[in-house]
Amino acid sequence: MDFRDTTPARMRSSELLAQDSLIVTERAVPTPAMDEVLVRVASVGVCGSDTHYFTHGRIGPFVVEAPLMLGHEASGVIVAVGAGVDASRIGSRVSIEPQRPCRTCEQCKKGAYNLCPDMQFFATPPIDGAFCEYVTIQSDFAHDVPAAVSDDAAALMEPLSVGVWACRKADITAGSRVLIAGAGPIGLITAQVARAFGATEVVVTDVSEQRLAFASAHGATRTQHAGEALADAHFDAFIDASGAEPAIRAGIPAVKPGGRIVLVGLGADELMLPVNLLQNRELWLTGVFRYANTWPTAIDLVASGRIDLDVLVTKRFGLDEVEQALLAGREPGALKAVVQPWR
Amino acid sequence: MDFRDTTPARMRSSELLAQDSLIVTERAVPTPAMDEVLVRVASVGVCGSDTHYFTHGRIGPFVVEAPLMLGHEASGVIVAVGAGVDASRIGSRVSIEPQRPCRTCEQCKKGAYNLCPDMQFFATPPIDGAFCEYVTIQSDFAHDVPAAVSDDAAALMEPLSVGVWACRKADITAGSRVLIAGAGPIGLITAQVARAFGATEVVVTDVSEQRLAFASAHGATRTQHAGEALADAHFDAFIDASGAEPAIRAGIPAVKPGGRIVLVGLGADELMLPVNLLQNRELWLTGVFRYANTWPTAIDLVASGRIDLDVLVTKRFGLDEVEQALLAGREPGALKAVVQPWR
Amino acid sequence: MDFRDTTPARMRSSELLAQDSLIVTERAVPTPAMDEVLVRVASVGVCGSDTHYFTHGRIGPFVVEAPLMLGHEASGVIVAVGAGVDASRIGSRVSIEPQRPCRTCEQCKKGAYNLCPDMQFFATPPIDGAFCEYVTIQSDFAHDVPAAVSDDAAALMEPLSVGVWACRKADITAGSRVLIAGAGPIGLITAQVARAFGATEVVVTDVSEQRLAFASAHGATRTQHAGEALADAHFDAFIDASGAEPAIRAGIPAVKPGGRIVLVGLGADELMLPVNLLQNRELWLTGVFRYANTWPTAIDLVASGRIDLDVLVTKRFGLDEVEQALLAGREPGALKAVVQPWR
Amino acid sequence: MDFRDTTPARMRSSELLAQDSLIVTERAVPTPAMDEVLVRVASVGVCGSDTHYFTHGRIGPFVVEAPLMLGHEASGVIVAVGAGVDASRIGSRVSIEPQRPCRTCEQCKKGAYNLCPDMQFFATPPIDGAFCEYVTIQSDFAHDVPAAVSDDAAALMEPLSVGVWACRKADITAGSRVLIAGAGPIGLITAQVARAFGATEVVVTDVSEQRLAFASAHGATRTQHAGEALADAHFDAFIDASGAEPAIRAGIPAVKPGGRIVLVGLGADELMLPVNLLQNRELWLTGVFRYANTWPTAIDLVASGRIDLDVLVTKRFGLDEVEQALLAGREPGALKAVVQPWR
Repeated sequence: MDFRDTTPARMRSSELLAQDSLIVTERAVPTPAMDEVLVRVASVGVCGSDTHYFTHGRIGPFVVEAPLMLGHEASGVIVAVGAGVDASRIGSRVSIEPQRPCRTCEQCKKGAYNLCPDMQFFATPPIDGAFCEYVTIQSDFAHDVPAAVSDDAAALMEPLSVGVWACRKADITAGSRVLIAGAGPIGLITAQVARAFGATEVVVTDVSEQRLAFASAHGATRTQHAGEALADAHFDAFIDASGAEPAIRAGIPAVKPGGRIVLVGLGADELMLPVNLLQNRELWLTGVFRYANTWPTAIDLVASGRIDLDVLVTKRFGLDEVEQALLAGREPGALKAVVQPWR
Repeated sequence: MDFRDTTPARMRSSELLAQDSLIVTERAVPTPAMDEVLVRVASVGVCGSDTHYFTHGRIGPFVVEAPLMLGHEASGVIVAVGAGVDASRIGSRVSIEPQRPCRTCEQCKKGAYNLCPDMQFFATPPIDGAFCEYVTIQSDFAHDVPAAVSDDAAALMEPLSVGVWACRKADITAGSRVLIAGAGPIGLITAQVARAFGATEVVVTDVSEQRLAFASAHGATRTQHAGEALADAHFDAFIDASGAEPAIRAGIPAVKPGGRIVLVGLGADELMLPVNLLQNRELWLTGVFRYANTWPTAIDLVASGRIDLDVLVTKRFGLDEVEQALLAGREPGALKAVVQPWR
Repeated sequence: MDFRDTTPARMRSSELLAQDSLIVTERAVPTPAMDEVLVRVASVGVCGSDTHYFTHGRIGPFVVEAPLMLGHEASGVIVAVGAGVDASRIGSRVSIEPQRPCRTCEQCKKGAYNLCPDMQFFATPPIDGAFCEYVTIQSDFAHDVPAAVSDDAAALMEPLSVGVWACRKADITAGSRVLIAGAGPIGLITAQVARAFGATEVVVTDVSEQRLAFASAHGATRTQHAGEALADAHFDAFIDASGAEPAIRAGIPAVKPGGRIVLVGLGADELMLPVNLLQNRELWLTGVFRYANTWPTAIDLVASGRIDLDVLVTKRFGLDEVEQALLAGREPGALKAVVQPWR
Repeated sequence: MDFRDTTPARMRSSELLAQDSLIVTERAVPTPAMDEVLVRVASVGVCGSDTHYFTHGRIGPFVVEAPLMLGHEASGVIVAVGAGVDASRIGSRVSIEPQRPCRTCEQCKKGAYNLCPDMQFFATPPIDGAFCEYVTIQSDFAHDVPAAVSDDAAALMEPLSVGVWACRKADITAGSRVLIAGAGPIGLITAQVARAFGATEVVVTDVSEQRLAFASAHGATRTQHAGEALADAHFDAFIDASGAEPAIRAGIPAVKPGGRIVLVGLGADELMLPVNLLQNRELWLTGVFRYANTWPTAIDLVASGRIDLDVLVTKRFGLDEVEQALLAGREPGALKAVVQPWR
């Protein structure tokens, strides 16, 4: 099938105009630049940040001031390529790494392109996301996925990448003992990832028994309620996926001397932290900001069956149902909603 | 049961007098020093080095000049402790880490105690091994094993430690592509270990189809005959467990730029190596010499079911059958022989 | 000279009985154990922690409940050895690494012996320090110093080790840009150390112009008053040697994405920290707790002239003047006081 | 001065037609592409590889089949910029990093762009070098140099980068003991670099007493004739800058257990190496292939006075004298020749 003949000039898109104001409208299908591909979108995961833009109209300094397409967890099939891209890519099913670093700054050149100060990231004003029918992305950020990986799983390589990046920062390896606070989608994925990195003990905490039950079934070796006491100095690493101050403060003393604390969940800008404990135990505390060089690993982990992403998808929506999709996380038992624009 | 009351004064031991000359005799049961424990030996794996001492009377500069007990892969139960060791350890089932580093040299103090120049290692002249009924070891090198781990598996934590150490040196992590040359016990264990470290591609090569079949069933994602061509610059790491020059020379070009080559198998003292390729690809080449700080990881991997060691044991022998045990590896289908002194 | 013949049975010692209560008295000269040496003390630096024990009678959970000799920055000459130590060490001038780790725990065996939970550290109740004529220490923690290194410099290898350890944690290397807050002895030493590690920009901040002038003369490439604004995201590393909350909060945003923050100075148990900034920039924050494996480096740096420790010594005291020595830091222009027991 | 008005359309260039056949001719001044700058060349160092292309017409698989400009160690001033580059760069004095990686492959994206399989590198057929009046380079590979750095030193940032890269691979830090074999330009520069990284012992070996004398004056703490015995297991790192088999074989046993061997010098494709020693000591052996992310460090080291590159320049030549420049290294006492095209 020659996709180029069938790609229309116009497409449907879901656009956020301002806080609580979402419309479905039409735009021109974008034209891939020299080094880009055009992807017909198959599935787009809904992230908490998408919901936050919808409900607040902003995230910190990033304010929605012009119509913005949300959605940055996307998969699809390449239907056209720019002049500099091999046409053999047309037809490939891909997972989109939704970032466009400058590739020339110090951070990019040393491999930390997620820290590029000139990054253009999907669904972050004024850069559009993927709640639409077609998107462009630089060719090397459209990663091939094998046939066995579903469209939804291909989209969820993005949150999986967060988990992979967190586990790399946390230095998880065979035999690691890992504490994960928060059993939302990121925490649950990270539990699976920690196991895939060889962790032999993965304790997940949350306030929801339902989510803990899910964690037990998928990755956690043990779960406990967020309020319960944790063993002192027991874990090699603590990954916070809750953003909750009590969870963070409870988790730090549970880490062994020399261990690592990786803050993934977003919460308060500032927190009161036990620096004397950090000093006495020489703990390393850091956070993650997106990811770099994670897609090949993420895809291999899913393709090899080490990680199951499909199990996280609790509901699917069409492009006309983006608002419901954005709010789906509030329903009991909900984990991950996806938008399938052609549904 | 108070083991101290039941421990005899004398014990049976298998001793190598010289090349090809092995006897079963008696010795005094050793007395644990201040920081030691006395272990009633349950199982001892036979290693190629044991066989080599028997068939050659030496390994390089280490010559058997006085009666020597072989065997350095040992498990058992603590039956007595030195004055400085908590008596509550009595009764613990343990895996023995068969080394005694000085703990005061530069290497020991920086954590590389396997490189201690004053190391005393089991079954290396003039240090005795464990082909006997009781051995002593410093308390912290007698590692507790949970009930679910068999005596044989507890003994085989030693070769498992070699695999863990090799995978650490090779920097194996989630998504790694690993080439392993040689499907003897170490190569087979390392294949399982690589998987436990998260490797998603583990290719094992050997000349024996039988061993490759075993590899396929336990750890390898693919196997190929040692003579077949390997993909160029495909693997993140190459671990040689063969010691065979052709395998080593074939494996190096299969490693990606920046990748690692870890030589585990012992072979020739010197080899012709493609240094220009090592330079152009900035490959890292190293070897392993025993291991350090591997037992806790090894035990966790077996206890959690990530690694199956019992499957490697193809034959068990008593203390009177050590010679047969040492030569058992020559039989078709043989993988690992163990000596159970109380059998 | 055979020191053993001349070592007396009794020695003078300065002992802290309780807060503000210090006496000079007599004790038996200690006998070196099997693996120890007896050192005739030549010089002992005064550390802020010594002063704190004197003025408060405690540091956190460590309370002076029995007579305690303070002082943990010590040098001297070996005058006797335990049975397990080569007698040729007698007569060696040494710098004392004032710690006694267990050598058998997980932390010790992996090279992080400073994190040993059973550490016995000089001048930390109930372990005595070196404000006396003779002390014992395990032989491998009495490090030989060359003739060109003064007794005072040999004593100050201890605070130098703090600086070396901080620069290792901060990953300082050739071309690094380093911010150091606090120009007390540790900050000043660390500035020199950062230069010795290859840093090409070392900015030191403090509230004292006098100390900044000293920093400019010894290590800093630039200084600025602690109140002045710092360039945003400019430094590869920030080492806090002040323990002051404003300095720590001001320093963190001055670190580049991916950079490191090492907290050396002791201050409040808890601090309000900008975790969102730590996340967005993926900064690494840690602290130092003493040091491990630093003495050889410290001695080489001084012996090679890279670091000048003598320049820090602003006043010397005898054993009868320990109280004045402990309070000498309050005098204007004071940097480091040392106690020379035989003065 | 507005350089754009004064830049001519044609320029003089030195071109290698084939082995031993070099002409001075004319070419069009190149036009900078979107992301490039046009540099008026000030100084170009002569490298052994330039000489090798001249005397052999090839290096391994790279054959001179069309007129080729040699020279890849270049500095100059930016006289024009491409449409995507800030015009304020015009007038900047720059050191050229003579490589053009793809920026999209796995190696580029993880920061190892020197290992990019699609690299275009100066003076490597069919990519031209800098023995001419003007060259283009991507803007971010034209690194600003401060006024205090001479044109020649700015050119020699390239071999300095080799030394920086080698010292990074060798993990040189404060207190390191380093052996460097070969006192040619790279070995001599690396000795200075090792000192700048904090090494306190830098032993340089060579067969030329004259070069050893130079090494002693610039970086080495000690020198010895290449034939003399080396201390066993003494050095933390061995950097070979000779490419000579005897030097490499002599250097390896001089490295401590766990130490590093970095092969910089080019020699035979294959060498007989003591793999058993590499194994028993767990040595790490690697090589360098150019460099990545070294220019900022190199420039800082020269600008701060840590490294003196001007001292290496023993003769300067004009564009008509390139042949003499290429052969200048054969003269006694010669170290580094530079070509100044406008001389």
